[in-house]
Amino acid sequence: MTTAEIGKEVATLCRQGKNQEAIDRFYSSIIESVEACAMPGMDQTQRGIQAIKGKNQWWADNHEIHGGTVDGGTVEGPFPNGDRFILRFKYDVTPKQTGKRMTLDETGLSTVRDGKIIKEEFFYAM
Amino acid sequence: MTTAEIGKEVATLCRQGKNQEAIDRFYSSIIESVEACAMPGMDQTQRGIQAIKGKNQWWADNHEIHGGTVDGGTVEGPFPNGDRFILRFKYDVTPKQTGKRMTLDETGLSTVRDGKIIKEEFFYAM
Repeated sequence: MTTAEIGKEVATLCRQGKNQEAIDRFYSSIIESVEACAMPGMDQTQRGIQAIKGKNQWWADNHEIHGGTVDGGTVEGPFPNGDRFILRFKYDVTPKQTGKRMTLDETGLSTVRDGKIIKEEFFYAM
Repeated sequence: MTTAEIGKEVATLCRQGKNQEAIDRFYSSIIESVEACAMPGMDQTQRGIQAIKGKNQWWADNHEIHGGTVDGGTVEGPFPNGDRFILRFKYDVTPKQTGKRMTLDETGLSTVRDGKIIKEEFFYAM
């Protein structure tokens, strides 16, 4: 699969809320995941497939998603260039810790090597 | 200025159609500009402020812009992470060469050093 094809598949799975399946199918075991800022109790950069799965599970467990990925309208892309692609995400969520409904609006830059995503970097305003 | 502040200024200028002013104010003389594919008669990667100004002028001269930046609705971001930020652009244009109206939908990843943009990379599907 080309980088753009992988990006399309990942975007489709994210639209269906199947983020863990996207990780299983397309993430390298040595995946590195970089946030724009550290999440509570986590390093800004996480390394290895188990850490990234854990971060995704933490996110899913700690946010109520009102709309977004499931309705198909809020994962845009992929925007490819060479061995990388960008996706744009919008989520309407309530973090369970704060109870305050908010919009998460961010972009993710993924780098592909040998058919697997080896790095993802998230860009968003704080 | 922080990277995010530079991103905001660049986005604002692009919304006003003042791309050349954004280049004058925020681009390093050693700016490197990378397209997802080469434009007609140009290399995929352009280097130096004069080459980048030339590319922007070529683009402006060869496209009729119907909507987009001037109406303020189609430059989104910045989405920052560290010394980089992403902008998302949508343009409703007719390339003068083809005469066929189309939507350009892309993201740009900019890297900042010492208060100036030293690299811009454009991501889009072909």
